[in-house]
Parts: sequence; C-alpha cells; structure tokens
Amino acid sequence: MRLLLLNPNTSTGVTELIDRAARAVAGPHTEITSLTAPRGVPYIATRAEAVIGGAVALEMLAECHGEYDAAVIAAFGDPGLGGARELFSLPVVGLAEAGMLTACMLGRRFSIVTFAQALAPWYEECIEWHGLRERCGGINTLDGHFTAIDSVQEEKQDLLVELAHKAIAKDDTDVIVLAGAPLAGLADKIADRVPVPVIDCVSAAVKQAETLAALAPRKASVGTFRRPQAKPTSGLPHALGAWISHL
Amino acid sequence: MRLLLLNPNTSTGVTELIDRAARAVAGPHTEITSLTAPRGVPYIATRAEAVIGGAVALEMLAECHGEYDAAVIAAFGDPGLGGARELFSLPVVGLAEAGMLTACMLGRRFSIVTFAQALAPWYEECIEWHGLRERCGGINTLDGHFTAIDSVQEEKQDLLVELAHKAIAKDDTDVIVLAGAPLAGLADKIADRVPVPVIDCVSAAVKQAETLAALAPRKASVGTFRRPQAKPTSGLPHALGAWISHL
Amino acid sequence: MRLLLLNPNTSTGVTELIDRAARAVAGPHTEITSLTAPRGVPYIATRAEAVIGGAVALEMLAECHGEYDAAVIAAFGDPGLGGARELFSLPVVGLAEAGMLTACMLGRRFSIVTFAQALAPWYEECIEWHGLRERCGGINTLDGHFTAIDSVQEEKQDLLVELAHKAIAKDDTDVIVLAGAPLAGLADKIADRVPVPVIDCVSAAVKQAETLAALAPRKASVGTFRRPQAKPTSGLPHALGAWISHL
Amino acid sequence: MRLLLLNPNTSTGVTELIDRAARAVAGPHTEITSLTAPRGVPYIATRAEAVIGGAVALEMLAECHGEYDAAVIAAFGDPGLGGARELFSLPVVGLAEAGMLTACMLGRRFSIVTFAQALAPWYEECIEWHGLRERCGGINTLDGHFTAIDSVQEEKQDLLVELAHKAIAKDDTDVIVLAGAPLAGLADKIADRVPVPVIDCVSAAVKQAETLAALAPRKASVGTFRRPQAKPTSGLPHALGAWISHL
Amino acid sequence: MRLLLLNPNTSTGVTELIDRAARAVAGPHTEITSLTAPRGVPYIATRAEAVIGGAVALEMLAECHGEYDAAVIAAFGDPGLGGARELFSLPVVGLAEAGMLTACMLGRRFSIVTFAQALAPWYEECIEWHGLRERCGGINTLDGHFTAIDSVQEEKQDLLVELAHKAIAKDDTDVIVLAGAPLAGLADKIADRVPVPVIDCVSAAVKQAETLAALAPRKASVGTFRRPQAKPTSGLPHALGAWISHL
Amino acid sequence: MRLLLLNPNTSTGVTELIDRAARAVAGPHTEITSLTAPRGVPYIATRAEAVIGGAVALEMLAECHGEYDAAVIAAFGDPGLGGARELFSLPVVGLAEAGMLTACMLGRRFSIVTFAQALAPWYEECIEWHGLRERCGGINTLDGHFTAIDSVQEEKQDLLVELAHKAIAKDDTDVIVLAGAPLAGLADKIADRVPVPVIDCVSAAVKQAETLAALAPRKASVGTFRRPQAKPTSGLPHALGAWISHL
Repeated sequence: MRLLLLNPNTSTGVTELIDRAARAVAGPHTEITSLTAPRGVPYIATRAEAVIGGAVALEMLAECHGEYDAAVIAAFGDPGLGGARELFSLPVVGLAEAGMLTACMLGRRFSIVTFAQALAPWYEECIEWHGLRERCGGINTLDGHFTAIDSVQEEKQDLLVELAHKAIAKDDTDVIVLAGAPLAGLADKIADRVPVPVIDCVSAAVKQAETLAALAPRKASVGTFRRPQAKPTSGLPHALGAWISHL
Repeated sequence: MRLLLLNPNTSTGVTELIDRAARAVAGPHTEITSLTAPRGVPYIATRAEAVIGGAVALEMLAECHGEYDAAVIAAFGDPGLGGARELFSLPVVGLAEAGMLTACMLGRRFSIVTFAQALAPWYEECIEWHGLRERCGGINTLDGHFTAIDSVQEEKQDLLVELAHKAIAKDDTDVIVLAGAPLAGLADKIADRVPVPVIDCVSAAVKQAETLAALAPRKASVGTFRRPQAKPTSGLPHALGAWISHL
Repeated sequence: MRLLLLNPNTSTGVTELIDRAARAVAGPHTEITSLTAPRGVPYIATRAEAVIGGAVALEMLAECHGEYDAAVIAAFGDPGLGGARELFSLPVVGLAEAGMLTACMLGRRFSIVTFAQALAPWYEECIEWHGLRERCGGINTLDGHFTAIDSVQEEKQDLLVELAHKAIAKDDTDVIVLAGAPLAGLADKIADRVPVPVIDCVSAAVKQAETLAALAPRKASVGTFRRPQAKPTSGLPHALGAWISHL
Repeated sequence: MRLLLLNPNTSTGVTELIDRAARAVAGPHTEITSLTAPRGVPYIATRAEAVIGGAVALEMLAECHGEYDAAVIAAFGDPGLGGARELFSLPVVGLAEAGMLTACMLGRRFSIVTFAQALAPWYEECIEWHGLRERCGGINTLDGHFTAIDSVQEEKQDLLVELAHKAIAKDDTDVIVLAGAPLAGLADKIADRVPVPVIDCVSAAVKQAETLAALAPRKASVGTFRRPQAKPTSGLPHALGAWISHL
Repeated sequence: MRLLLLNPNTSTGVTELIDRAARAVAGPHTEITSLTAPRGVPYIATRAEAVIGGAVALEMLAECHGEYDAAVIAAFGDPGLGGARELFSLPVVGLAEAGMLTACMLGRRFSIVTFAQALAPWYEECIEWHGLRERCGGINTLDGHFTAIDSVQEEKQDLLVELAHKAIAKDDTDVIVLAGAPLAGLADKIADRVPVPVIDCVSAAVKQAETLAALAPRKASVGTFRRPQAKPTSGLPHALGAWISHL
Repeated sequence: MRLLLLNPNTSTGVTELIDRAARAVAGPHTEITSLTAPRGVPYIATRAEAVIGGAVALEMLAECHGEYDAAVIAAFGDPGLGGARELFSLPVVGLAEAGMLTACMLGRRFSIVTFAQALAPWYEECIEWHGLRERCGGINTLDGHFTAIDSVQEEKQDLLVELAHKAIAKDDTDVIVLAGAPLAGLADKIADRVPVPVIDCVSAAVKQAETLAALAPRKASVGTFRRPQAKPTSGLPHALGAWISHL
C-alpha cells in the first residue's frame, strides 16, 4: 500500500518529524512517501494561511495522486481536505480528522492540546467543519513564543504535559489530542506523564489511511463528493488546471 | 494482535457471518476469536433487548478480557459499549461506532441502511449517544419480514440496493453504512450497484480495533473512563461481580 | 391508584428513604409498594452499573407490572427506562426524568447537585438522552468520600447546601435538582437555606406517576414504543423471557 | 388547593370548554376558578396577538394572584408565561408547557396537532422557547376554515384524527399533543381512533399545577426568576402597575 | 427616507440619547422621528416588562406606521418585533437584531456588554429568538446600581470599558456589542480604549433600516409574516384594534 | 466611500452583472470599482474551486486593499472571507453573508434559491460556517444545464420563479435569497412574481459594506481577527507574501 504524507507547510524539518512518526506505526506493507509544500509558509497557523495551504495541497495532489493508494494531508486543520476528497479518487485523510475520530473511540470527549495560541481559531473552525463540536472538550494552547518549529516539541514538552493536566481538569475530558504536525511523535514520549490516552495525530492518520486503503471504497459517482464536471481554468498550475478541466 | 469479536446476540449463524467478514479484512498478524452470547435474544432490535444484551456483553468481557488486545462489540447499536470502556483496560470498539466514524472520512454525511424497521429507534439513540446526528443523513429501513436472521442479507440483497439508492436521493448523502451484524460481508457484494462508498461495519470495526491496538493507548487513570472503584455486588455472574469488586 | 417504586439498587436502606419520601407527598388514593433489586450493586454510579441495573429493572417489572397502575424507576439515571416503556403497558417514569421535567416548570435552567463525582458521566448521558442539555445549567458534585449510602444525605447536608449555592452562581441557574435516590427527602430539609426552588426527585416522580395514571394514556400500538413483536429468548429470567416471547 | 385557569382569550365559550375539561381530571381537593380575558382577541393565533395576550395575562394575574395556590395560562403558546413566573410567587404553568412536558414522559418524540395553519409560527417559537425542539417531531395543522372557535373540535374531529395519523407516519412520533385551548376535552373522545397516546393539554396542565402546588417550591429570591426590584410605571392598569412598583 | 425610532420605554431622556446617536450616523436623505412610549416603564429590563413594552410598541406602530419607510424598535431585547413584522408593511428592525447581525460581519463571535445584571435573562432569550446563540460569546453585565438611566453611560463608562476587556478575555470574542438604548452614542467615545470593534446598536439599527428601505422588499403575502386575517378585538387601543380588524 | 467589488471568478461577464447591480443600489457617495480574478475558474461551484478562489481573493486584496474603504467578496460561498478579515484592516463582506444576514431582518427563515445543483454542498458549508443553519430553511437548486454563466439569469428566470414557489411551500420560509453572483440584478425583475421578499445578494452586500464603512469599526488588535504576526513565506505572489511577512 503506497501512502502519501503531504505536508502543506514549507518546513522540511516538520516533514521529517512526520515521516519518522509515520514509519514507526505503519504496517509492514505500507510504503511511505513524504512531500513538503513547494510554496507557502513554514507552518500554517491562521485562516488565511489555511486557504493558501489548502490550494497548495490541491496542487500537490494533482501532480501525484495517481501514484498512491491513500493520502494524508498532514496539517492539523486539514487544509484543502474537502476539495481533495471531491477532486481525486484515492482516499484522503486529514490529520485533525484522523486524530479526533480515533480519539472518539477512546472516550466521550477529547481535548485539543497545542503549542501556539494563534492556532486556536483555525482549529475551532476545523472542529466545526467536522461536526465534532459536541465531542470536543476544548482547545488548549500555550501562550509563549518558541524558538523553531521543528524543535518546538522538545522545547515545550514539559509545558505541554502541564497543559494536558489542566485540560483534563478544566474540560472534564477523556482523551488528549496533541494537535499540529510539529508535535508528531511526542505522544509516546509523554504517555506516562498524562493520566488519559494521548493521541498522536500522525500515527492515527497513518492507521486510518491504511484502514481506508484496506476497505477500498469506490469513488462516488453521484452526490457531493463525486468528481466535478470538467470546467475551463486559467492561470492554475498545469497539473491542477488539467485535472479540473478533465484534460 | 489478539482480537475478540463479541456477538451479544445468541445467533451462532450471525457469529459465523461476522467471523468470515472479519477474517477477510484482518491484517496478517491479527488472530480473531468470535464468541456468541450465552443468553439473550437471537438478534437485538429494541431498546429493551439492547439493555439486556449490554449486560450480557459485560459478563462476556469480564470472563475473557485479559486474553485479548482489543475487542469489538459486534452489534450495530453498540450495547454495553460505554460500560465496557469504563470497566476494562483493552480497547473496545462498537460496530456502529466503527462504521460511522469510518464513513465520516469518506464524506460529509452518511446514511444508515438496514433490513428491519424495528431497529430504527435503537439506532437513532445510538447515533445520538455518539454525538453524530449532524453527520447522519437518515436511517433507512426495509419494512417487510424476513425468513431467517443469518440469511437476511441474501434474501433482501436487491431490496437493500434499492433502499440505498433511495437513501442517496432522499438524504443527500455521501456514504452508505450497512447496519447490523447480519449484513456482515454484504458491502463488497453490492459495491458495484451503489454509486457511493458502502461501509461494511464488521470490516471497519476490525480495522479500527487494529488501529487502536497499534496505537496502544493507556487506560485512563482519571476522568470518566477510569476503572470505577471497587464496589460490592450480589447476584451477578462470578467474573463480572469479581471484576466490579476488584477481587 | 397502585404505584410501584422500583429501586434498581440492592440497598434496602435507600429503598426505605425512597418509600418514606414517596408516602409524604402521595395523594390520598395512591397505594405505594417499594421493591429493592434482588441482584446488582448497592447504588448505581457508572455506565456499566447502569446497564446491569437497567437489565435488572426490566426483570423486576416483568415479574409484577400487571399489579400496578404506574411505576417509577427510582435511580436518578433512569436505568432501563426506554426498554421498560417499550415492553410494558403501564406508564413508567424515571427519577431523573421526573425531577428535571418538573424543574423545567419552575425556571429556564436547572442545575444538578449530587453527592459523588462518580455519578457525573452517567448523569450527563441521561440528560442528553432526555434531550434536556439546553435546559441544564450543570452537574455539580461533591468530591469527598462518604460513610454509608443510606445516611449520605445527613452526612453531607451542609456541603450539599454549599454546593447548591455555588451551582446557582456558576450555572446562572433557576432551580436546583437534588439528584440520586439516596437524597430522597432532603429537599424539604434544606429548602430554607437555598434561595431558589429545590426539587426532590422522588416527590416529583410520585406526582408525575400520579399524573400519568390520571391521564390514563393508551399503550401505543404503532411507533417506537409499541410492544415489540414476540421473539425467542434463552437464558433470561423466566418472567422477562416469557414476556419478550409473548408467552 | 385553589387553581386559577386563566384564559387570555376573550372567548367565554373557550373558557367553558377549558373549565369542563379541567374539572373532569382535577383531584378531589382542587377548587377551580376559570377567568376570561377582559380585552384582546377571541383566540390568540399570531405573534402579535400573543404579545397583546401576554400583557393581558399579566394584568389579570396582578389582580388576583394572591387568591390562588397555582395558575394555568390556558392558551397553547403560553403567552406571558416567563413574565408571570418572574413577577408572582404562585407556580404558573403554561398549556403548551404542561402538554409537551407530560408527553415527554410517554415517548421520545411528540407531535403537535392543531386546527388552524395560522397557529404554526407562534407554536414553533413557543417550542423553541421551552428548549424542546429536539423532542418535537413536527407541528401539523389543518388548513381549512372553521365556523366557530368554541365548536371547532366537533366540526373538525374527523379531520384531526386523520391529521394525527398523518403526523404519526410523517414525524415518526410517539405521542400526539392536541394543541390549543379550543380542543380541550377532545383527547378522550378520539383516543380509541389514534394508535399512540393523545395528550389533552388542559388535563395535563391541571395535573402539573397540582403537582407544583403539592411540591410547594419556594419563590426564588435570587437568579433570573426572582421578583424584579420596584420600578415606577405609568399608564398601566392599576393592579399591575402597583405590583411592579411594589406598592 | 422617513425613519421612525420607536422607544418602547417611557424615558424621554433615553429617547434623546437615541435620537442624537441616530442623527450622527444617518444618511443625508434620512428624516428621523423619535417617539417615546406613552405608557409602561422607564426602561425595560425583565421578561414581564418586555411583554408589556412589546404590546405598547404595537400600539404605537398602529398609530403611525403609514407615515414611515422603516422603523426601529429601540430597546435591545426587541420587544414586539415579531408581531410588528407580522402586522405592518414597513420594514421594522430591532436594536438587538441590528447590533448583533452587524457584529457578525466583523468577527466569528460577539459579546454583549451592558450596564445592569437584571437585563441578562431577557437578553439571553432575545439572542435565542434570533437563532444567534452560536455567534454570541457571552452576556456580560455590571452588577452595581446606577443613578439615572439617561446618564448611566457617563457614570459607568470606565467600568464598561473594563468589562469589555474582561469579556474579550473570557469569551474569546471578536466584537463587543454595547447593549441597551441608554448606551446609545457610547461606542465612539470608548473605541480607542477597547482593542476590538465596538458596536453601537442605535447606529447599526439606523444603517440597517436604511438598508432595508433601499432594498424595498415587498410585504409577504404568504407565509408566517404575511398580515394576519381580520379578527374582531375588544378593549384594545383604537388604532391597534382597527388594524387587527382590518377596519 | 471607495468600495471594491472583488469577483473571485474569472468571468468578466459576471463582473459586469455585479457592477451593474451594485451601482443601481449604491449611495450617492459610494465609488465602486469591480475587479475580476486574474486566474482560477469562470465560476466557483465546488469545495475545491472555493479553496482556489479563496487564495486568489487574498492575492487580489493584498494588491489593492489600501485603496478602498470596504470590500465585497462577490461570490456566494464567500471564498477566503475569514482569511481576508484576518489579514486586512478594511471591512470585508461576503456575498452570502450579506444576503443571509439581511434576510434575517425580514423573517424567521430564509431559503436559498440558485441555478445549479453543483453549488449546494459548498453553499451548505458556507451557511454552517456563518452559524446560520437554524435560520436557513433549505437550499433549492435547478438541476438542468445552462448555456452561459453570464446569461443564466435570463435563461432560467421562469424556472427560478417556479423554484422559489416550491421553496416557500417546502421550507415554510419567509424570505428567498437568490444565491450566486450570476443572479445579480434578478431580484427586482421577479419580485412581483414571488409572494415573499426576495434578496439580491449584491444589493445587500453593497448596503452592508456601506454600513460597515459608516460605522468605521477599528481593526482588532487582539483576538482571532487581529492581523497575524509576521511570518516568512516562499513562492507566494509578491503582494500577498510581503503582507504576510509584514514587509
């Protein structure tokens, strides 16, 4: 099974974190390829950046979707997920989606724990888009600055554990979801220090992508996720424009 | 990975259907054991039967939970799921839960399709318990009688395909969830005749149980899914009484 | 009017509390019978215990439902209520249901006040099952231990008054619902010390059962609360099995 | 127990219907007084009329609230109910409130059946005000004209039975609530022709008022239903102005 | 464009505040007339007063609706708004409605800031009536007394700024809505001291009334806001009674 | 007041329709500039196209936001609206947002009427993003093909009127919102043939943009719509990259 991990951020350090966490949990027959966004921002944190990153994710998928059995959009707010699911035939899973749905199987309520306050509004919209507001106890963020995006999980490890404890008390929560690709791989390191299950979203997304690949669902030919009809485009990157135009 | 498929119904024919569907999709390292409820009804269809079946599911898990890495409660309304998740340390997944959460990754809305009208009120309560009402387009049931529970999927196959088509039109839905353990294995047979993805809940549950086993979440030691404190019991089957009493 | 108070807990001391509170408020023509669960746990506090207690409640009702004009399931989370309403012809009222619906007639929002933290998750699910989340300001629990279940209301009286005051401030609430059969009879004793109406659930349930008996609604013969069709059973207590099988 | 039935409509014929239905179900110690609005419209059917009728209800209660142990605002949309509950110390129950909350104890969903299309928007707002949208399957109205408000229940009896049957099928409902004071007393007459419980709102309101009188809840001295502080008024009817001014 | 500002309170001082704030923002072709309620209370603060004020607003509109192109009901809880919209042909806008809908265009969540605790329950019902609960972060009130309603905005200016800051932190809000006609004109004075947009409801209502007048929507002739059919009345002020009777 | 109408579609014919409808309703001091997207698709109809169009809208605003007092994103699903509101200081209004919020002032429920089935899923997500699901009666679409996007309103005029009538009956709705920039200017033409108010979204958006410009709200300096902190970018169009980087 060929699995694409698509990092819609431009930070290669984060891609490496994701790639490592994915390989640690992938099944024996899963071949992982990790790609970094060729343009955009180092890490998506706002509504504006999510729109930009979502468009870049579609461009990336248009280039290579035929080579994979499933894909993960590896940024927590799932930029471009709905559009990707519409356009392409392979199953596409979002990092937030996979983390939250997996958490649902471990308790009534999950709480989001993440490293930067700026992420909260975008994450909130993502939770609502997925219809999971009722299952989410809260979004909990650290408020300080961090040195570098690809080492933020080491720098903030103790503070994140402390924040998880606060979230459990405040949100009356059953599961902690560590949100954001830069935290990939952290869950295992802190599991002993947090008294409820801790979800690593990259791990969850890899297993969910494997699940969908195993179930091999057909592409819808009717309904709201069928491939849209051909439409002319102008000025789009070639592969995306061609795919939208059915060329 | 040792996986328990727990059929809270007394029908061994349904257990065989479940077992076969599970083995068809299980990973190479998954060892499957399927157990049939020792008491109760042939197939749970109402709120009353779900309470009875839920208690039986807890009794069965109390007997053998230590021998498995994960368990599936293999009846669509997930009888006893919350209690099981509270009491025991192994991950426990419900058939409805697995089917619906997997469907969420394939579209905005899923619709339930099943073979008997009597199931609808119980299923409706199950969907609400999981907080997924917003994602569910509708519960669609056949209204005629059927000859035998373990052959209902052959008997009703054409009618279920027709019902799926009606559901797609009526519910404006993206995914069909075939609900009820007696329909295990049917999805693959009808996939070509339904124009959106069709979810087999047993397949989904096996993959989700494998996912949870791979993530190996810790048992909560605080919060609403920690193991309850020891409490005396009377008149309960030995294993369940002993486990509740921490004996 | 013959009224059954069904205690799904095995604690006879709690049954006595319920019985006393019920007689204090019952109408002149109401004959009260109080029964204690023959098996189970001394007091239901968790999801698992609620499933077990729900099944026991159905067994008890199957034995004697023909002898009464109405029944109260006298544990706050209403174990087995949906199933009982489905199976039997007499009106059945839950303790939580009666307390909360009565509270709705005294204000916009009610708050739950109870004596043990362990009860909160089960109560939360009960409130949602009744579709009353919007009317409930919060579930407020004491966090210490208590000496004995049938004297917890004396032991914790002052702390419960204090908790009611906190709930009023925190939840912006109009009514306090004292939750849990072990608090039966407490409301009158503390009414002067709490500045909003305080609901005793046993009192409310007795009056609501009298109300339903007076209205004498017919048993539904269609819809989701009609009696389910006959179905074979195995291994169930005789009366329950016979009733489900229409024998 | 002295119970006031307050008809906020000016139709004395409807008051007689209400009075008769109330006496048929009232307990032996309940003394019923029925009053007709001194000004307004013959029957409230719209948002505008509900505001006018609500103000009249407050004027009527200001005159006589001290003489009763409980009151019923006997028009289905509960005009003035929140204000009445705020201003006065006696328990006040609305016709819609009593009918709907009682119906909640007989099934998961109730459906409203009434005789005039014009009532639907006001009833819909009333259901939302009570936070019961989730429990209501639908509002079903006849669309023809009727000859006289106090004989509409005879004139439309067969059509209302037919509409109840339609509502059961369409709304997947468990209970029918006959809405509108002009239908007082009809439920018993048609109970045999409708296959689910049928609620007479006047009967339900009388029993609920008796319930509240028996529980004798204190008037809130804090929170949103405490009596508002004294405030000068001008141009209001004397009793209402004096009560608001604490004179 | 002739715009009516209808103050349903009897305080002429508040009418002057409203009038001044309205003129400051009105377009060059807008002629403003401000009217004070001839009877009622100096400022509406409770559910009871809102019903009374709502009826008075309808009486006022019945007198003069033909002379204007649009009207504003200039009290924050929008008393009588639904009824006014039903009865009359000119567009009618509520103060709360205009303030909140305008705030929706400036952020995801707005928070209400006002000067008296007594207003909160009525405002809460108003927000729910408008279906805007999801967009509202909270209702924040001062708890002290004030000297006079028409100078409360000067007296409390610093405390209201402080409360706005607290609301921003507590509600995670994007916009502050200054609620209550007595705060008309305050927003501009404190805009520099509050770090998010501050909405003056009178200003918003004037612009929204101008918007509706410019769009010139037709009066509905079907549906729930068509003019109700003629109905006899008794005891109502002449203009209102005549309008309801289509005389 | 300088108002930018930003068409995120590449169809200049649609831009002309928008421009004409805007000028018809704009105030005397409003100067209108209409811009067409330099790249993308002729008309956005799907989730994927909305992400692409949203990114293009941000690029366009980055170029010229300093030259205007307010902007309208003139496509019904409001692509890029949240991001635009975050990044830039001028008020930005969405076409759907303006149409729906204006409709809220004319009735309890509005219904969407539009010309192509493909638009429904995207519109549904837009309505939910705005938190207006409760106010929306339904999304009603024609299902045939059309000849050209800039003449679809003439081609389909009769069918749209017919669809509006169906929507009124089916959705029990108070207001029709004609959705989609290609329908700009149609509302006035069909107002006489539809028995409830019909909203032209471009007209509404122009008036709402004028309203915001008149109120002149400050740009938030805290909260979720403050301008995000400077962040490096790569590969973005120059103006957008520079603005995100605070260069």
